[in-house]
Amino acid sequence: MEVFFVIKFIHSTFKITMKDNPTLAKFKTIKTFLFDVDGVMTDGTFIIQEDGQFLRKMNAQDGFMVKTIIEKGYQVAILTGGRSEGVRKRFQKLGVKEIYLGLRHKIEAFEELMSIYRWDKNEILYMGDDLPDYEVLQAVGLPCCPANAVPEIKGICEYVSPYKGGEGCVRDVIEKVLRLNDQWDWV
Amino acid sequence: MEVFFVIKFIHSTFKITMKDNPTLAKFKTIKTFLFDVDGVMTDGTFIIQEDGQFLRKMNAQDGFMVKTIIEKGYQVAILTGGRSEGVRKRFQKLGVKEIYLGLRHKIEAFEELMSIYRWDKNEILYMGDDLPDYEVLQAVGLPCCPANAVPEIKGICEYVSPYKGGEGCVRDVIEKVLRLNDQWDWV
Amino acid sequence: MEVFFVIKFIHSTFKITMKDNPTLAKFKTIKTFLFDVDGVMTDGTFIIQEDGQFLRKMNAQDGFMVKTIIEKGYQVAILTGGRSEGVRKRFQKLGVKEIYLGLRHKIEAFEELMSIYRWDKNEILYMGDDLPDYEVLQAVGLPCCPANAVPEIKGICEYVSPYKGGEGCVRDVIEKVLRLNDQWDWV
Amino acid sequence: MEVFFVIKFIHSTFKITMKDNPTLAKFKTIKTFLFDVDGVMTDGTFIIQEDGQFLRKMNAQDGFMVKTIIEKGYQVAILTGGRSEGVRKRFQKLGVKEIYLGLRHKIEAFEELMSIYRWDKNEILYMGDDLPDYEVLQAVGLPCCPANAVPEIKGICEYVSPYKGGEGCVRDVIEKVLRLNDQWDWV
Repeated sequence: MEVFFVIKFIHSTFKITMKDNPTLAKFKTIKTFLFDVDGVMTDGTFIIQEDGQFLRKMNAQDGFMVKTIIEKGYQVAILTGGRSEGVRKRFQKLGVKEIYLGLRHKIEAFEELMSIYRWDKNEILYMGDDLPDYEVLQAVGLPCCPANAVPEIKGICEYVSPYKGGEGCVRDVIEKVLRLNDQWDWV
Repeated sequence: MEVFFVIKFIHSTFKITMKDNPTLAKFKTIKTFLFDVDGVMTDGTFIIQEDGQFLRKMNAQDGFMVKTIIEKGYQVAILTGGRSEGVRKRFQKLGVKEIYLGLRHKIEAFEELMSIYRWDKNEILYMGDDLPDYEVLQAVGLPCCPANAVPEIKGICEYVSPYKGGEGCVRDVIEKVLRLNDQWDWV
Repeated sequence: MEVFFVIKFIHSTFKITMKDNPTLAKFKTIKTFLFDVDGVMTDGTFIIQEDGQFLRKMNAQDGFMVKTIIEKGYQVAILTGGRSEGVRKRFQKLGVKEIYLGLRHKIEAFEELMSIYRWDKNEILYMGDDLPDYEVLQAVGLPCCPANAVPEIKGICEYVSPYKGGEGCVRDVIEKVLRLNDQWDWV
Repeated sequence: MEVFFVIKFIHSTFKITMKDNPTLAKFKTIKTFLFDVDGVMTDGTFIIQEDGQFLRKMNAQDGFMVKTIIEKGYQVAILTGGRSEGVRKRFQKLGVKEIYLGLRHKIEAFEELMSIYRWDKNEILYMGDDLPDYEVLQAVGLPCCPANAVPEIKGICEYVSPYKGGEGCVRDVIEKVLRLNDQWDWV
């Protein structure tokens, strides 16, 4: 006898067996979410101010979901090459504790996190969109990217979200994990 | 004998009987408009400044309509989870008196408004796009949402506007109420 | 014998007789351009700052064309309901002398301009997108609007640009006037 | 016997002979990249601040590629009509040394650069989108423009990128040069 999961994701409802879909099985086991910022939390653009600082545009729905998973006990970390106090404050307000800014080599921050938290790499989802995310995506159990990722990144990701950066790709992967674990509080 | 209303809304003209369309009959009785901000008055994104404040992008056509209904004697209130003095000043300038910012539970603000104004809930239209709007949408007579609302919200709304947040969804519901009450001052 | 004009506008080349197309004949006689700002020079949105000021997003190609026609001796004026020193400075830098901000009734500013300059109304092109532009559009010889204008405005305009506000609608009408007067300096 | 190059560009893989495609052969010889800013590095819009300054929106993927080619020893210069300290700081941070702001006639800056560096014009790629770029595009060996360029500019360019300004057109031309020279460090 086979157990079926009826899963309703954004824009579609489908019935699928975990056995049939190994990617979905991986989403169920995720305990830790790592996110890139530019191109994932944003559309990859920033506004350049006269003092040389950048302003970024983020999405309220993504933010609400990040806050929700932290309240439910998941781990969240941010790995970005950009330096911005506004980005730091944004994620601090949402409850994120590990926020790495100004990274030249993201893999080093990843290894530092691994040595501190000793996470099981199979329980880590990382979402990134561009070449600097290459190594970390190869190091985690569930590499994901938004619809606007460059082709080299899409080629090594297990899941390519139908949503673009800044348009709900973060909400999309979080929703999958919550629904598969019966933690989705809404109908 | 049946009375017909010929109604010309944005992008379409149609002839419809109030009896045939109970949603339209509800629009006609509206006296109070409640609006969420992020995802309704805006496209759901905000610009993150270095000091941690958010800047929001709104629409001139929506603003003109909010000002118009207040001048015609309708009640308008804003219910948002965000905290922004810019948003407060924007709506004050348009004439809105009840502006609730930084709400964690919007339903509490709604109940406070109800206890002060003793509005008939059948005369209230609320427009929201995301999960924090769920309870208030269930409490009002005419729950509405923009085209970009999350599926859970679309599922409980009586009217889903064809317009997205920040692209005219507010103007769309206001226009319906004004036209149905012969208060549309333009051809 | 008929005179033909071969006109190459943005995205298309066509051969047309002035006699056949009275709108085109009107473009040829234009000496004065009046422009609304929100929804014409911009996409109708603005960024709301914490101090209650609005920031607007404009287009480099439109700006280059406004500067060009002023250098060629055309009259240009701005009529807007918004109040913004940034908008004033932007148009001053392009060479515009008549900049009316914070208008509640645009028709009054229009009448003031007419009493000062005694323009022939048939030589005036006005471009606006929303209901506050209604009266001035009815007062000028060549009423124009962008693709995103509200239906009431489209209904009274002689020319609806295929371009939206902030995406080249201003350049579009200026190009027509310059080409029809053999003042287009590029191939 | 013919030598084939199998080239995988953004969104497509194709096999082509250099002999068959003279444009591709030109990309291979490029040593110097000149870029316009508005409409190339940006979508052609800017945000107008109350002090009259403009803010521009740029793309993280383009920036990463500009930094990469400078590290690999290519020359990069910026030629723009706009004046913005933010733009200057942005490109300084990426490693660009020649940044010309506030140009009224870009060709003069180009000639100054040529007299200093004595570049071979066949090894220069210039990307611009609007009429002020006309003369420089005619002066270089490989004139390029983004998908949103005005028709007069498209008409004189050897290569029209399928990407718009601010959406990856810069990355597109850089990627071609790097791949054709076996300097693309990613799969």
